[in-house]
Amino acid sequence: MKLNHQQFGDTDNKQMNMKNKNAKKTELVANWQTLMRTFIRPENEETKLILIKYMEQILFGLHNFLKKHVGITEEVSLKELSKRFTDTRINKNPEKKLAEVITELIEDIAPHAVNVASPYFVGHMTSAIPFFMVHLKTIVAALNQNLVKIETSKVVSILEKQVIAKIHRVIYKEKESFYKEHVQNSKTTLGCFTKDGTLANITALWVARNSLLSSKEGFSGIEEEGIAAAYKAYGIEKCVILTSKLSHYSLKKAGGILGIGNQNIIAIDVDSNNRINLALLNKEIKEIKQTGGRIRILAVVGIAGATETGTIDPLKEIGMLCSENKIYFHVDAAWGGPTLMSEKYRHLLDGIELADSVTIDCHKQFYMPMSSGMVYFKDPAIMDSIAYYANYVNRPGSVDLGIKSITGSREANSIILDCALKIMGSQGYALLIEHGIETAHEFAEEIKKRPDFQLITPPELNVLTYRICPAKIKHKLSEANFEQRQSINEKLNKINRTVQRLQREAGKSFVSRTTLSIGNKWKEDIVVLRCVIMNPMTNINILRKILDEQEEIYRCHMHEVSSQ
Amino acid sequence: MKLNHQQFGDTDNKQMNMKNKNAKKTELVANWQTLMRTFIRPENEETKLILIKYMEQILFGLHNFLKKHVGITEEVSLKELSKRFTDTRINKNPEKKLAEVITELIEDIAPHAVNVASPYFVGHMTSAIPFFMVHLKTIVAALNQNLVKIETSKVVSILEKQVIAKIHRVIYKEKESFYKEHVQNSKTTLGCFTKDGTLANITALWVARNSLLSSKEGFSGIEEEGIAAAYKAYGIEKCVILTSKLSHYSLKKAGGILGIGNQNIIAIDVDSNNRINLALLNKEIKEIKQTGGRIRILAVVGIAGATETGTIDPLKEIGMLCSENKIYFHVDAAWGGPTLMSEKYRHLLDGIELADSVTIDCHKQFYMPMSSGMVYFKDPAIMDSIAYYANYVNRPGSVDLGIKSITGSREANSIILDCALKIMGSQGYALLIEHGIETAHEFAEEIKKRPDFQLITPPELNVLTYRICPAKIKHKLSEANFEQRQSINEKLNKINRTVQRLQREAGKSFVSRTTLSIGNKWKEDIVVLRCVIMNPMTNINILRKILDEQEEIYRCHMHEVSSQ
Repeated sequence: MKLNHQQFGDTDNKQMNMKNKNAKKTELVANWQTLMRTFIRPENEETKLILIKYMEQILFGLHNFLKKHVGITEEVSLKELSKRFTDTRINKNPEKKLAEVITELIEDIAPHAVNVASPYFVGHMTSAIPFFMVHLKTIVAALNQNLVKIETSKVVSILEKQVIAKIHRVIYKEKESFYKEHVQNSKTTLGCFTKDGTLANITALWVARNSLLSSKEGFSGIEEEGIAAAYKAYGIEKCVILTSKLSHYSLKKAGGILGIGNQNIIAIDVDSNNRINLALLNKEIKEIKQTGGRIRILAVVGIAGATETGTIDPLKEIGMLCSENKIYFHVDAAWGGPTLMSEKYRHLLDGIELADSVTIDCHKQFYMPMSSGMVYFKDPAIMDSIAYYANYVNRPGSVDLGIKSITGSREANSIILDCALKIMGSQGYALLIEHGIETAHEFAEEIKKRPDFQLITPPELNVLTYRICPAKIKHKLSEANFEQRQSINEKLNKINRTVQRLQREAGKSFVSRTTLSIGNKWKEDIVVLRCVIMNPMTNINILRKILDEQEEIYRCHMHEVSSQ
Repeated sequence: MKLNHQQFGDTDNKQMNMKNKNAKKTELVANWQTLMRTFIRPENEETKLILIKYMEQILFGLHNFLKKHVGITEEVSLKELSKRFTDTRINKNPEKKLAEVITELIEDIAPHAVNVASPYFVGHMTSAIPFFMVHLKTIVAALNQNLVKIETSKVVSILEKQVIAKIHRVIYKEKESFYKEHVQNSKTTLGCFTKDGTLANITALWVARNSLLSSKEGFSGIEEEGIAAAYKAYGIEKCVILTSKLSHYSLKKAGGILGIGNQNIIAIDVDSNNRINLALLNKEIKEIKQTGGRIRILAVVGIAGATETGTIDPLKEIGMLCSENKIYFHVDAAWGGPTLMSEKYRHLLDGIELADSVTIDCHKQFYMPMSSGMVYFKDPAIMDSIAYYANYVNRPGSVDLGIKSITGSREANSIILDCALKIMGSQGYALLIEHGIETAHEFAEEIKKRPDFQLITPPELNVLTYRICPAKIKHKLSEANFEQRQSINEKLNKINRTVQRLQREAGKSFVSRTTLSIGNKWKEDIVVLRCVIMNPMTNINILRKILDEQEEIYRCHMHEVSSQ
């Protein structure tokens, strides 16, 4: 047992840790034998038991602590916490055994992390995940395959191609013969896994950029020669990307990274339903076309589940417009993509099958652990425009998935999605999606019923925004002129900012806030409270309690707020 | 127990699985209560035991299978495997319980995955990881924090800033006061975690690009206006990046993505030690300077641990050259970075502290699970050039780590590195690094002793290349003229390709191969066998056995090969 003790710490580490805190610690020493042993699969039962015991602590001990804390309590402020994490030296010898490290994480870190799994945490697109997801992630880590190439992943690369074809089919519904041809075709690519939605969007627009400015006589393509040369070869002054003003900020980032310039990501205003204004989009396209090619539209990006409002652009209409004008059409369905799993609501995304590419996040409504995204392409050959090869990896003609990918080394998150689909069935995901949408609608009704609240953007999926706006102020607003409205809204903004902060600091529940200049015809900047209903444990009673608390905070602090 | 059974499968799932295979399966049905229960922390001991049992299977069952298989056996060919993964439909109802999914992964997937943990797997930069890394990854998944913003991570963002400062200190060794000022400073950034080395390199060159072509009168900066406008504003025709021809292909990819054009990543030849030829680099810089600003050098990239040869560029000299010429200096230390943990060998990277930015991979020589990379910056303010904000996330002035990052949502891999540093100490990492370097040198001696082998690139770190080249052919080569050499080398290339493939297919061990046009003054393309010694279980005896096997394959198949 002595060696095991040395290697993995103690079975009863909680007790031991207390002892350590009291007693003078004996210094640990890094030594080759001990170190090597951490690499070997333990053969004796005692050591195995210890390793399992740690997993038990991780699975349940961590959850015990999370249970006690909800939201982002300010019991200990960020500033105070920061003071505890300032030592920047690395000890030469080991500081702690695994047992102590786990205890420390459970006792000192977890209580100050954010309990994103709480049903009262409805502020962001991060929520509880099914328990089995943790097991699946552990499998991915234990196998430790690298998807960049077949030589470090073999069957897992093949499995990933299958999962990608499964989701492609959910989006595009091509014929069986199409999937037979492409599912295991090493020359074509239906999509790829990325770190997150941002990288999925960047990948899609990278492909769009390279497709538009591909090689032609006297020009070897934008990827090789760069943008300046491409603009010269094509007689272009600039490229633009058209998208709704509610689109995710990653599109601007993509414009910056890809060298197009983020000011050329043009935000089109939305209609009264917070969808891209089609008339304005059409007008913009026409105006740009009148430049005779001097300005080129690199892509139009539609949203299926806007980050702030959850709204979905009219994908079918945008798709047809793009098709008529021969413009690349990308859909950012990072949030809303999995709605396609629900037969009841998939129609909300009608037209997504017209997209040249689609972004979907796994760690959002596929309920996978942080972080995993995906991007899909209608044309199985289009990713060729971003292929890279090297002698030591990614050889031409191989199944190496790193050939067409923004990243190099990459873990097998596809295993998690594949297993989750098998465990849940599409119906399991459908139930989660439907619960979110329907609870959000119930919540909207509740908000409308309460005199102190104002619904700002009603839910189309499972995201909504509202604000505190007492009945008498609502009345004032309706009669006010522009200046008066401005002054009232500024006051309301202060109130909502304060209530959101105080609720967060109280630590019982968390809604987020954002600033919208939509949902009101005056285009005023108004601060709204934002709820995302994705946790299946979040129900209307919990949401009522959250509103009750906001009312309570508002009443208690009204004086304070008004006098600010 | 009935509900648990429904929920998590069976305790004795192996047995159950056999039953399932024989009996007609009862169809599983997706149902709300069952589904919800997967989101709840189980309260009863029986269910807890089941969940723990699965972890046991994952930790040890998976390893049992891995133990039996080494390398990329061709027992079942890729083509045959592909045929098993062609069904692209998703079942409406659940297909399998968690228990069955785990059993399937252990019995059907793991045996056809690659045993990267084997000490006989010395072909790539992926190796065994310490057992505790799997526990740490499980913690990251169970906490499921999102580092994009403080509201979904709180203390974990603070912890990450501390870890980043720790590694920054290892590289740059700034004064204590520097780290006191920046470790928890929400306005400055010493570096960031990325998905991998590729994204770290892209991030560094994105920063370099934006720093070079920043805003000035009449121009609001390249990020906003794009490359074409930037070149116009600065009177530039093109930008180039100078690097050794042994640099990683991700630099070319970065040139493509960032809009510079990958043909403008200029590969400088190497000297006889496989380091960038300083005289040629100097000459190139001078020639470009003579264009009077028409061509601008965006960055010089030095390598600390080339992918193919493990060699390190003369960082000090490059750093001084860059400093004299006011050129941005990036070091790609994705592989070699952790060598800095060894007092004995850190001098090999002398000059790295002159770099404006440094890439280091966590899943390489920090022995973390796939996949995690990092990039560091000398100037804590330089990442401001790639900052992005949004109302709903990443507010100005906040600690939100997503503000300066190529990705959005991101898991807390920093927890793993922090814990590993505590468990191993810098000395633990030093021991691993030193074992790799010293074993590689021993191996090189062994190769030189054997008459049928030829050492091509001797190890500087823990990577080396060699080839099969029987004594009599060596002799012939030394006397041959250019045409004769070509013909002999072509034959040798065939032999080495075949031996590598046959060894891989035999499934006992795995070395990789690549094609080098270095290490021989004729710049001929020669196929070499490549070994990466990072697994602490890999020792000289194992490496001797690998050579024995290659000799054996060569002898048995000589006839076949020569007649090809």
